Amino acid sequence: MKTLNLDLGAKSYPIYIGRGLLMQADYLRKHISGKQVMIVSNTTVAPLYLQKVLGLLDGFAVQNVILPDGEEFKTLNTVEQIFTALLEAKFDRTCTLIALGGGVVGDMAGFAAASYQRGVNFIQIPTTLLAQVDSSVGGKTGVNHPLGKNMIGAFYQPKCVLIDVDSLDTLDARQYSAGMAEVIKYGLLGNSDLLAYLQKNMPDLMARDKEMIVKIVHQSCVDKAKIVAQDELESGKRALLNFGHTFGHALENTLGYGEYLHGEAVAVGMLMAAKLSAAEGFIDDEQVSQVEDLLQKSNLPTTINSKIGQQDFMNAMSVDKKAINGEIRLILLKKLGQAFISSKYKVQNLELIIKDFL
Amino acid sequence: MKTLNLDLGAKSYPIYIGRGLLMQADYLRKHISGKQVMIVSNTTVAPLYLQKVLGLLDGFAVQNVILPDGEEFKTLNTVEQIFTALLEAKFDRTCTLIALGGGVVGDMAGFAAASYQRGVNFIQIPTTLLAQVDSSVGGKTGVNHPLGKNMIGAFYQPKCVLIDVDSLDTLDARQYSAGMAEVIKYGLLGNSDLLAYLQKNMPDLMARDKEMIVKIVHQSCVDKAKIVAQDELESGKRALLNFGHTFGHALENTLGYGEYLHGEAVAVGMLMAAKLSAAEGFIDDEQVSQVEDLLQKSNLPTTINSKIGQQDFMNAMSVDKKAINGEIRLILLKKLGQAFISSKYKVQNLELIIKDFL
Repeated sequence: MKTLNLDLGAKSYPIYIGRGLLMQADYLRKHISGKQVMIVSNTTVAPLYLQKVLGLLDGFAVQNVILPDGEEFKTLNTVEQIFTALLEAKFDRTCTLIALGGGVVGDMAGFAAASYQRGVNFIQIPTTLLAQVDSSVGGKTGVNHPLGKNMIGAFYQPKCVLIDVDSLDTLDARQYSAGMAEVIKYGLLGNSDLLAYLQKNMPDLMARDKEMIVKIVHQSCVDKAKIVAQDELESGKRALLNFGHTFGHALENTLGYGEYLHGEAVAVGMLMAAKLSAAEGFIDDEQVSQVEDLLQKSNLPTTINSKIGQQDFMNAMSVDKKAINGEIRLILLKKLGQAFISSKYKVQNLELIIKDFL
Repeated sequence: MKTLNLDLGAKSYPIYIGRGLLMQADYLRKHISGKQVMIVSNTTVAPLYLQKVLGLLDGFAVQNVILPDGEEFKTLNTVEQIFTALLEAKFDRTCTLIALGGGVVGDMAGFAAASYQRGVNFIQIPTTLLAQVDSSVGGKTGVNHPLGKNMIGAFYQPKCVLIDVDSLDTLDARQYSAGMAEVIKYGLLGNSDLLAYLQKNMPDLMARDKEMIVKIVHQSCVDKAKIVAQDELESGKRALLNFGHTFGHALENTLGYGEYLHGEAVAVGMLMAAKLSAAEGFIDDEQVSQVEDLLQKSNLPTTINSKIGQQDFMNAMSVDKKAINGEIRLILLKKLGQAFISSKYKVQNLELIIKDFL
């Protein structure tokens, strides 16, 4: 078991990473301060792990709310279901919300915890690779709006993150690959050692070698924790973590949810960002091919097969949260393993690459 | 013009109080950092003051969203209208939301500012007495849920609060009295000088003597700012500001919105709390009469004329945010001008007083 600390002063918290953590009550229990616990999960994850987590919570007043599964349900309306469950149970501001599931569950449970009675305790138990390496760490919570992804939310930090990689046993192959996209992201944006490790070991990782998984999950969390600790509210450096995401969000927004998983959209987005980085002269075509190759070895998409209008795609990019006064800021690669924020690229290059993909 | 500073470290902000402030652009403009401004108002206030505020914002990209007027519209659905307006205008995270209106507008615009893109700039221009002396100061934002008042929200501080008491010229008498209830609250809970001033001058205050109004608005904000600075997130002392509110919220929740204005419900609630304080032996009947007399001089209700079941009322009290593990904590008076938080009162006394009012 590995423990790492996300250093945010009074809001610091531990991230526990290992195998069999859902069999050990202590890590979870010591971060619950009140008596009332609401487990937020979904229809896919609850049948698999709810009983296990309940087994760790003997002596607490535990309730649960089971949400429908899918990004299309990540809305204010679904969060309202959590509020209703909390109020029906008469839970007060000493209660603790536990997110048990993937990124969608974590984002909504976190926003509910941030907003219920203006803020209650919150714990993350991510069960998908994507949530374990990315969304459960760093305190971004929120929901989608019909006009934009993750447009409504809060920065709200959990009391701890409990990552049991054994929960990946039940994750389907497509979801697993989608999570791997975010691991690749850490390699590309700032960690060339991790990138080299992924390039060398992707076949074994795809075969779900557990020791290797612990290693890459831990390294991803270390990288993310380091950046978040420097810039919790994303006024600067944290935007690097959105490498591939402005393109990816535009893809998700224009196609609607369901066509691509978030990680899949990010995979395509990272390749688009790599190609723009090449067009801008920062990396060469061989390096773009390396990115493409790694994504393909992870069974991730590298093309857009659906019809999207170019103007629709550009519009969707311009409402991204990184946009400032209508100008689309993008994360580009200076080299493989080093990203930077730019609004100085040639718009013509951006348009050519979008056209090429659509 | 009086300026006072709410001291919250990096989140500190000024509160400007005076006459004719909506004619002076400087106070407002220096607290807007970006170019995009969204004014949030309602159908009652916008026709009166929107043009005035627009006149102060030359050179900014200004949009507005006009909400329906009334506590019954203080819901997540209405806040979603603000998000839609922001997204349709393609406003980014450098934008500023201005709340122009009473407490309901301020609570919703503040929660929208806290949640849009995980937090954007926010300015309060309260136009009702209640908002000027209470809800616009201190960063409490949020909406109601069918099962409880103000159950969903955030602590989110504005960049400044701009209080033009001339905007009270257009406030109807009932709303004005409802605001006076909160002023009386400051007197009762911790400021016996203010209390004496109100007892002496209520007829002139009811006649809306402007210099006197500036004085009591300023004193109310000073008192509130002092308490909020000590306890922003209401882990202790700030709960004193809820004097009369647990009873008042229960009244609003059981009767539905519209029967009593918030300040009216608080007035009845303060009298209930005063009577419980007497039953517990802290104050005497003559002092209870003083409270009743002051409320009546302010044209505030001191009785409950609608039918409410006693159990319904108790249930509504137990979901109040001050409840901990099902125990109803109340703010009682040690003497007139000094309140304290208690869960040690006799439940029998509480029940008798509720029975007496219903």
